[in-house]
Formats: sequence, structure tokens, C-alpha cells
Amino acid sequence: MKLLRYGEPGAEKPGILDANGQIRDLSAHVGDIGGRWIAPEGLAAIAALPLDSLPIVSGTPRLGPCVTGTGKFICIGLNYSDHAAETGASVPSEPVIFMKATSAIQGPNDPVEIPRGSEKTDWEVELGVVIGKTAKYVSEADALDYVAGYCVINDLSERAFQLEHQGQWTKGKSADTFGPTGPWLVTKDEVPDPQNLDMWLEVNGHRYQNGSTRTMVYGVAFVVAYLSRFMSLRPGDIISTGTPPGVGLGQKPPIYLKAGDTMALGIQGLGEQRQVCVQG
Amino acid sequence: MKLLRYGEPGAEKPGILDANGQIRDLSAHVGDIGGRWIAPEGLAAIAALPLDSLPIVSGTPRLGPCVTGTGKFICIGLNYSDHAAETGASVPSEPVIFMKATSAIQGPNDPVEIPRGSEKTDWEVELGVVIGKTAKYVSEADALDYVAGYCVINDLSERAFQLEHQGQWTKGKSADTFGPTGPWLVTKDEVPDPQNLDMWLEVNGHRYQNGSTRTMVYGVAFVVAYLSRFMSLRPGDIISTGTPPGVGLGQKPPIYLKAGDTMALGIQGLGEQRQVCVQG
Repeated sequence: MKLLRYGEPGAEKPGILDANGQIRDLSAHVGDIGGRWIAPEGLAAIAALPLDSLPIVSGTPRLGPCVTGTGKFICIGLNYSDHAAETGASVPSEPVIFMKATSAIQGPNDPVEIPRGSEKTDWEVELGVVIGKTAKYVSEADALDYVAGYCVINDLSERAFQLEHQGQWTKGKSADTFGPTGPWLVTKDEVPDPQNLDMWLEVNGHRYQNGSTRTMVYGVAFVVAYLSRFMSLRPGDIISTGTPPGVGLGQKPPIYLKAGDTMALGIQGLGEQRQVCVQG
Repeated sequence: MKLLRYGEPGAEKPGILDANGQIRDLSAHVGDIGGRWIAPEGLAAIAALPLDSLPIVSGTPRLGPCVTGTGKFICIGLNYSDHAAETGASVPSEPVIFMKATSAIQGPNDPVEIPRGSEKTDWEVELGVVIGKTAKYVSEADALDYVAGYCVINDLSERAFQLEHQGQWTKGKSADTFGPTGPWLVTKDEVPDPQNLDMWLEVNGHRYQNGSTRTMVYGVAFVVAYLSRFMSLRPGDIISTGTPPGVGLGQKPPIYLKAGDTMALGIQGLGEQRQVCVQG
């Protein structure tokens, strides 16, 4: 299933994409895309609804973030070997963990604000993992049982804030609008191999990132199990699993975003995002 | 006012401490201690209630975290010059920011779990700042307008997870139970000078930390303004402002927590916490 949330910010309704690409309204049956509705039982209840008889949503409404109730927005750093190389870092011997502020989460196509004082706002297409039930001390073999599905994330990053203003990285990852999430929460039954998904990102029509989750260093199941040793993962938590090469910091010379720039990005089977940059 | 939340985990009710130290039930008048109730208008509405006619809560109920709806649990690292020295670090030229998982938040006297695989679980008494209304690009002069009040935080830390398993610090700060918060949210009218509060922490009756917010490097108003350049602060967000000297890592040789140990800690005017350590 491709689950989504549509409508104005803070007033989104739950929806689902049908086979014709039309949004069907779930609000008569489902509270929201989050909490108990993305647990296995909740997803089974949604799957049992008569999709073709649900109301079609007309027009092209704004999409909100594809999941609500996110308590933690956890990121894995330097998780593609080629990206580590382009930033001058070595591949870490264990996953690097940092947090984005949950207040950075926004819809997949909402404008991205360049923060005041920004010098180096950068892009990162990433595979997002959405947790469906609480995971604590889980094994790698069981880890995917705790995953509801996947989505596209743009892990926007202000490199000067992240790297040149004392630690930690969260400082450059957390500005409002720095976490476009969606368009859809694609349930894991539709993603048989999360380690074999093409992914790409373009700025002003030029393709800078053109990778695949095949080159991820620490895969989804390992990361979920690993994180669950250090904190409990709860329904609605998002793990953004790192970016392939081609970020602005890695260009020679580096290229950063400015007001008026447009981004388009996507992951195979998970949909696309489009953002315009505005001055914050 | 000393606002609090009492009752079983997940089912806490809002309360207020009266002049005799008795808990009065606010639940007939206040939704919870969080969101709009800790904005200036909400706090004014609570202040206008006839405190002496509110129901007295009998017995000694469990206390929950003193605020709910926390979207971000932001910490300032190395923010006391003597603590930086004891950990072998220098005082940073700008505040160091890291995040604790919001899932680490718990009541002030709930047991603290030593995580599985832990070697170096440590304590840190800290002044917590609770945000009352959204702050974005605010000045230091205006910053305290966005603060609802203050509380005691024990910023528990697993030093091996934090420092010896690749970055970032969030990895050692985020275990379940690593964020005891409360007992009270003390509104800022009762804390005329947050930079002049004695603070202390004891383990098994031995006083290890004995400091004051006077030696904080970056004060509350500066920190709120500084953070608001990098992310918006929202009602219920908590900022834990760093710890004075005397953590376990700073002892010679270092001392760490084990199951059965007890902690007691407090800050002048903000109340006390007591925790027993259990194996996670």
C-alpha cells in the first residue's frame, strides 16, 4: 500500500493511492497514518478496506509528511562508502547516529527555507524507514518485523552549521523544512528488497545524485537492530539511512542551495519529491 | 507555580503543588501540563484558579515527567567550564548541541535502567528549560519570553556508547529511562535568576556534584536565542543546559552506576529526584 496524508499543514487527512494513481480518502476508517494504524494490526485493517469504494479525492491537494506522531527522527551518517569518501571521511566501524529535530519534518513538496545566516545549505536523498511497533533489543533477523514501511527523505543539511560551529551535527540538520518526508509511506510488502532501490536527486534539472541502496554500508535490518540497543524505537519514528554520493559539499568546487533553486528527488517505487528553495 | 503530573505512566493527570506541599488536582480545569497550557495565556489561566479550593490528592502518587508533548529534548554539552576540564575537553567557542531521544523521558523518581551491554553509565544533574511558545530567530533580550519555566533533569549518559562506539553523542544519551524530568515545572516567575541556583547530586549517599548555575558558560537566555537560529523551539521542548563537575567519568579512577545504586539530586527551588538503578 502507498499511504499518505493530504490537506493543509496540521489538518492533514489520511489517504491511500489506488492502482490508477488516484488518492482515496481513508478518514472515515482510519484516524491518521501513525500510531496504532501503522502497527501490523492497523495496516492489516487498512488492507482489508474495499479500496475501490473509498471516496476519490479530487484535484491535486498538498501532501503532508506521510506519517504523523514521529517522536524521533534518527539519521545514520556516512552510510554509503562513496559518500564518505567525497566528504573526506572514512567509513565508520559502527553506524554513526545523529538526530534531526522532529520540527524539521514537512511535506514532500513544501518549500525549503534557507536558514538566516546560511552559507552552505545542501541536499541528501535518503531511504527513510518508518517504525511500526516498539523495538528494543531486537535481533537483526527479527528487525524488519518492526518496520511499517519506507519513504523518501531529503535530509537537508547546513554544512557550516554542521561542521564549522562546534558540535554536534544536529546543529546543521534541524532547521524548519529540513526534513521533507514522503510522498508515501510504502508498506514493506511492496518493498521486498530495501537494499536494491535506485535513488536520485536533481537541482535545477541537473542530476547530482544517482545511486542505489545496494551500496549502503549498514543495511536496514542491521541499523534497526543496532539502534534498538541504544534507544527504543517507537511507532512513527523515522530512520533516515544515509545518502549516496553527489551532495553539494562533494562537488569541486562545492555547490550550495540558494533561494529560487529547485530540487527533485526520488527512490524506485517510493515516489518523488519536488521543492523550491526560499529565503528563511 | 509548581506544576506537575501525577499517576501511572501514560495516564498522568495535571496537578499543582500548594503552599503546604500538597498536590492539588487540576484535571477539571487543565488538559495537561504541556501545549497551550504552558503558553503565557495558559499559565495565566492556571494562576487565576482558586488554588485552595482545588481537590487535594491523597497519598503519595507516582510523579510523571513534569511536562508532556516534548518534541525535542535538546542538550548543551560542556557548558560548565570545570566539567569540561574534568572530561579533558576545552570550553567550546559556541554551544555544543546534541539531542537526547524523547523516549528517554520519564518521571523524576522512576527506576533508571542500566542498558544491556553498558560499561559506563554516568549521572549529570542539569537545569532543564521548558519552552512555552514557539521561538524562531529570537534575540537574547527577548529569549526568556519564550520560556515557561524550569525543572531538574538527570542527563544520564553511557560514556562508552557516547565516546567509544563512533559518533555522535546521542548514541550514549538516549536509552529508555535516561531522562528523569521533574518533579515540578517551576514557572519562571518563581525563578528570578536562573543563573544563581545551587545544584547537587549524590550516589549512594555520597555527594559527587555540588555546583551552581553561576558557573554555566552559556546562560539560559543566550542558549534559547542561539538554538532558535538553528531550529524552531516549540511548546513542551526541553533544553538541558549542561552539568557542573563531579560526574563519574571525572572521578579518579572513574566510577559508574550499577544495579542497586541509588541517586538523589536537586536544584535550589526546583525540587529533588531519587532513582534506583536496575538492570535493563
